[in-house]
Amino acid sequence: MQKDASILITGGSGFVGSHMLEYLLLQGYTNITITDRSNGEVPAGVRVEILDLTDAAATRTCFETCKPDYILNLASVATVGNSFQKAESMMTINSSLMLSVLEAMRAVTPNARLLQVSSAAVYGLVSSDRAAAQNEETPLKPINPYAVSKLTQEFLASAYARSYSLDVVTVRPFNHTGERQTTAFALPAFAQQIVAVERGEKESLSVGNLTGIRDFTDVKDIVVAYEILFDKGVSGEVYNLGSAEGHSMQEMLDLLLENSSVEVHLTEDPKLARPLDIPVSIADNGKITALGWAPTHDLSETVQRILDWQRKQ
Amino acid sequence: MQKDASILITGGSGFVGSHMLEYLLLQGYTNITITDRSNGEVPAGVRVEILDLTDAAATRTCFETCKPDYILNLASVATVGNSFQKAESMMTINSSLMLSVLEAMRAVTPNARLLQVSSAAVYGLVSSDRAAAQNEETPLKPINPYAVSKLTQEFLASAYARSYSLDVVTVRPFNHTGERQTTAFALPAFAQQIVAVERGEKESLSVGNLTGIRDFTDVKDIVVAYEILFDKGVSGEVYNLGSAEGHSMQEMLDLLLENSSVEVHLTEDPKLARPLDIPVSIADNGKITALGWAPTHDLSETVQRILDWQRKQ
Repeated sequence: MQKDASILITGGSGFVGSHMLEYLLLQGYTNITITDRSNGEVPAGVRVEILDLTDAAATRTCFETCKPDYILNLASVATVGNSFQKAESMMTINSSLMLSVLEAMRAVTPNARLLQVSSAAVYGLVSSDRAAAQNEETPLKPINPYAVSKLTQEFLASAYARSYSLDVVTVRPFNHTGERQTTAFALPAFAQQIVAVERGEKESLSVGNLTGIRDFTDVKDIVVAYEILFDKGVSGEVYNLGSAEGHSMQEMLDLLLENSSVEVHLTEDPKLARPLDIPVSIADNGKITALGWAPTHDLSETVQRILDWQRKQ
Repeated sequence: MQKDASILITGGSGFVGSHMLEYLLLQGYTNITITDRSNGEVPAGVRVEILDLTDAAATRTCFETCKPDYILNLASVATVGNSFQKAESMMTINSSLMLSVLEAMRAVTPNARLLQVSSAAVYGLVSSDRAAAQNEETPLKPINPYAVSKLTQEFLASAYARSYSLDVVTVRPFNHTGERQTTAFALPAFAQQIVAVERGEKESLSVGNLTGIRDFTDVKDIVVAYEILFDKGVSGEVYNLGSAEGHSMQEMLDLLLENSSVEVHLTEDPKLARPLDIPVSIADNGKITALGWAPTHDLSETVQRILDWQRKQ
């Protein structure tokens, strides 16, 4: 990417978006626009377009204004825990915003590159003989509406790409975390409770099922991969993004607890359980490491940053 | 199926629904309910529930009334030609009605069997080495929003089935036709124009691209397959439904023209072309023929019935 290329980041004020902005500014990119639904704080040198991406006309106007060469589509309703309760609005919003972006791209910037951020959730229940690692050809067995909505976005993007010769690269990130991630996700939720115990505001930490094996990557490594995929991703291809290493949720919690200043007791909360959980989710990351990406942050550093951030709240 | 089993057919007043009703009544089934959006003509002995399936509460009430043992989910927005223009409403309606059915099934009749009617459109652009026939493992490469909306329905159904142990069988019918099919589809549209030429109301027949190879089955054979799948389909499995024989659209048109009482000239209409069309779509039907199904109607009989029906309009 040229440093003055026009880069549009949808959902740019979210968790990953904020880290992507920090990284791109540090790399010297000068022509960055983000979309946001309301006026929030944004680093100097970044333009903000206030709009709801489910509004196709507003999205098109945004494309006409910033004429993106590269689009990072991070915007998405992204709740997993209770996605059955919110299934209809999640399906509607996630497909609607995807269609707005694709229609705007087709009409205004048909030569731009779209990096569509999907999710490893699309693999769902991998069969036991595949449990060691999911490559991009692993059959798709999503188990909740969130995963289906991400698959729907992928298929819409590829249908537009095939029919209108658009340049679309898809990435399926596995679990990632870091400071500023909301407490709808497990590690920030644990960290928030640990800090509450440290402050004497809470007696113990509520946990759900901790046996699941997950592949965690620091968000600071995730955003580096997005730049690499803009530059070197092959059009029409799908890339897994993960460390290729599995850790149980218990191990991740233990990493957090090692960095706590007090002893924390655990209590099980059945309300945190899901109708069905995925036992193992580990990336086969051969395709993206072949492009030169590798994770560089140690997870003990990552959880330290998450705890420090929660202590400042 | 027991003859007094409660059978619910969503979209039961549509083209396939009407043939399914005829067939089930002929077989002696006595406990049939259909959903319809407005009050239309229905054969004696069939109950009608007037509702919009995107209304989850109304759908649940319908399930509470008829307590279905078997659900044939035929309801769907099913336009292909211009599905890019109607993408947003198509995606929203098709996922919303699917969620209503799944939620009602989970809440009211968790032991019922759902036969989810998908479409061979989900295969999309099969690569050339696979062009001869698509089996159920062929990679999914949908090229338009209609196909994506059918895939979304499949994935929602399987996500609910996995998470809540629901009994779902999925069928992917290839092209099918017969009397009462709307002129949004090619063969009835051709037949309608041929009849207009026969009546001296039109000079020629407008056609789009006729090189595509399609796998056509008589709707009367399709509905027999649905009964077989209710009885013998394996829960969680997907079944192709087609003849395994390919015909070019030109051949299908010629079959119609052979049965016309006058000579019909053709004119090409570029408006009938799509951004991208699928060159070949032929079913590998090994899985469903293994259950005892085989097509029995000759297509020259089928097109004769289509023409006769148009002549009565």
